[in-house]
Amino acid sequence: MHPQSIQKLIDLFSKFPTVGPRIATRFVFYLIKMPGNKFEELMNSLKKLKQMIKLCPSCFNPFDPSANSGQALQSTSEQKGTLCPICQNNSRDKNILCIVEKETDLEAIEKTKLYKGIYFILGGTINLKKEKGIRIKELKEKITRENFKEIIIAINPTLEGESTSLFLQRELKPFGIKITKLGRGLPIGGELEYADEETLSSALEGRR
Amino acid sequence: MHPQSIQKLIDLFSKFPTVGPRIATRFVFYLIKMPGNKFEELMNSLKKLKQMIKLCPSCFNPFDPSANSGQALQSTSEQKGTLCPICQNNSRDKNILCIVEKETDLEAIEKTKLYKGIYFILGGTINLKKEKGIRIKELKEKITRENFKEIIIAINPTLEGESTSLFLQRELKPFGIKITKLGRGLPIGGELEYADEETLSSALEGRR
Amino acid sequence: MHPQSIQKLIDLFSKFPTVGPRIATRFVFYLIKMPGNKFEELMNSLKKLKQMIKLCPSCFNPFDPSANSGQALQSTSEQKGTLCPICQNNSRDKNILCIVEKETDLEAIEKTKLYKGIYFILGGTINLKKEKGIRIKELKEKITRENFKEIIIAINPTLEGESTSLFLQRELKPFGIKITKLGRGLPIGGELEYADEETLSSALEGRR
Amino acid sequence: MHPQSIQKLIDLFSKFPTVGPRIATRFVFYLIKMPGNKFEELMNSLKKLKQMIKLCPSCFNPFDPSANSGQALQSTSEQKGTLCPICQNNSRDKNILCIVEKETDLEAIEKTKLYKGIYFILGGTINLKKEKGIRIKELKEKITRENFKEIIIAINPTLEGESTSLFLQRELKPFGIKITKLGRGLPIGGELEYADEETLSSALEGRR
Repeated sequence: MHPQSIQKLIDLFSKFPTVGPRIATRFVFYLIKMPGNKFEELMNSLKKLKQMIKLCPSCFNPFDPSANSGQALQSTSEQKGTLCPICQNNSRDKNILCIVEKETDLEAIEKTKLYKGIYFILGGTINLKKEKGIRIKELKEKITRENFKEIIIAINPTLEGESTSLFLQRELKPFGIKITKLGRGLPIGGELEYADEETLSSALEGRR
Repeated sequence: MHPQSIQKLIDLFSKFPTVGPRIATRFVFYLIKMPGNKFEELMNSLKKLKQMIKLCPSCFNPFDPSANSGQALQSTSEQKGTLCPICQNNSRDKNILCIVEKETDLEAIEKTKLYKGIYFILGGTINLKKEKGIRIKELKEKITRENFKEIIIAINPTLEGESTSLFLQRELKPFGIKITKLGRGLPIGGELEYADEETLSSALEGRR
Repeated sequence: MHPQSIQKLIDLFSKFPTVGPRIATRFVFYLIKMPGNKFEELMNSLKKLKQMIKLCPSCFNPFDPSANSGQALQSTSEQKGTLCPICQNNSRDKNILCIVEKETDLEAIEKTKLYKGIYFILGGTINLKKEKGIRIKELKEKITRENFKEIIIAINPTLEGESTSLFLQRELKPFGIKITKLGRGLPIGGELEYADEETLSSALEGRR
Repeated sequence: MHPQSIQKLIDLFSKFPTVGPRIATRFVFYLIKMPGNKFEELMNSLKKLKQMIKLCPSCFNPFDPSANSGQALQSTSEQKGTLCPICQNNSRDKNILCIVEKETDLEAIEKTKLYKGIYFILGGTINLKKEKGIRIKELKEKITRENFKEIIIAINPTLEGESTSLFLQRELKPFGIKITKLGRGLPIGGELEYADEETLSSALEGRR
């Protein structure tokens, strides 16, 4: 029913996270009505994103290598110049590794201002025993190459996340490094009455 | 906290309908991970959208003028060549005008396959007595120019929509044309017990 | 796990409308903690309910026959003395009958202050073609006995409600009385974009 | 609008936990339609509840003293005969006390089958610095009388619950007994991205 150039874009937007056809349609009508200069601004920002943003080769966090050129005095070391700000930061504890599923999880942990180690973005979870797409080879290489004293598996305690955590625990066990997981318990605002038994058991065991 | 080229795009996506900063952030990370050829496909589709899609000068519905060139046999008339398929369609009743707020509302009415008149997309609602941005001048010109026997105000019965309907009723009264509004009542799945009194009153009055 | 006298009451409360075992349990603990005099007040109110409240033999609305003794001047007529205030009220139009599913639906319509006819409480809906429990025999007797010019079927437009409306239309057709249904349409606060096609079609057809 | 005997009961049911006037009204209509023998069953169960169920004088958990007469061989001790099954149970660890707000919280912890100590039902939370109604005097007496090595404050981590926990910590500190609280963290099914910073901080600190 829609002209092809509209339908094509609806299809592409429908693949964006959390977006379905109805919202995708509203995006397209929003773009059609967008003034020309605003549309150019969006197109330029999109182009810049692909040009400027690189994945950190060590933790796979996206960052802008040009932005930190000033502060990275240690640019004599070629290697270091390509790392993200967290991996470059000398005050971070390079002996603790926190494995997260995705970028926004890394951000959530950074916001606590409590964690001082470094990260590794796994890039996904294991779904139905398929491990396609997650960076397990890169993770093992990083652990072999560096010198960790603790590896924190900070994957969501959802069904898929739990499979992924179990998989990581099995795969990383041979390294002989201390492996921990985020504590379970009642979140703020939670109620005992509505908590599942496993969460409540963890809250009891983890009492302090 | 984000590099500028990421933050800029988060800000732009945050203005998309229904999108807030959190979802906008996920969009940006989704784009960063998108393979190069897929990203090119998206950029090309965006460019095409702005090139191909025009607003119909009569009803303001977006359409692709090139797509209908074949079927528009009556292209001798220059004017007609620039109208959208609905305005061009000779089997539609040009004496009934249905005023809707936005494109997706037009689509919703088209899906009923019941309405055979033409449309006018108002482009917004009146918020706090401000009528900025709605096409009231264009609407009056269209009504002056054409020959309507009925004008259906099909604006959402929300708070803002109701102000807009009242405003339209007042502004269009001088034309002396029959003005109707969509019937109120219980929607499918609705329950008397939870309906507000005005809806239930309308349902009673509109019984058939 | 609970003592029997607690479990028994949980089971009974679990059958109350909208109540499940979890809420039923909270009810029981609430009652256990209730001061003795408050508990007596509840027990007395329950006893009184069963003693005082009768179903109106004409419309099946529950009412308190003793409460209206004063205002029912026409108590010479034995029959009338047993009718509910609505059926007794001489200013109500006895030629219009509104069929509702349950007491709270009658109340919802009364609140509109728009309807001046009388009611019939059907007592349920037809579920999976079973008509068990609904007062269809009593309804037909009432229609035979009285002199209606219009019968309004005011059953919820839900799935079960629609089956019930169709059933009523079929059963009442032989009486040759005008049968109407509540108007369908968008409720206050509704949006065209999210309305189903049937609701929107009704709103279009019922425009005024 | 309702007869007095209906309105009175609506008012009483409206005070039941989670019940508002609308649901209370449905309860009353449900009772009116209830067959006589079912109504008698409900009334008898209510009477029995008040006759049979007593609060345990030690933990304030409601129980049926007559139900356990058989198993309570140690009935030589008058005192013991009046305690609830948990307080009577010799295999429970009498040196650990778990303070909960209400009966259903006790049940939730029992379901984990992990906790082997005894309980104290506080009977409420502190609201706006008012401690009215909570059993703080009884709690202190119990702690003075018995010989606890650990007191677990298992109050919901909600706003009111947190005030209550702080209050308890302050009030119980002089006893010089180890006081713990349930561990905070992500519940099963939770996601880092949507967790508040305090919950995530607790999850990080409580990693194991």
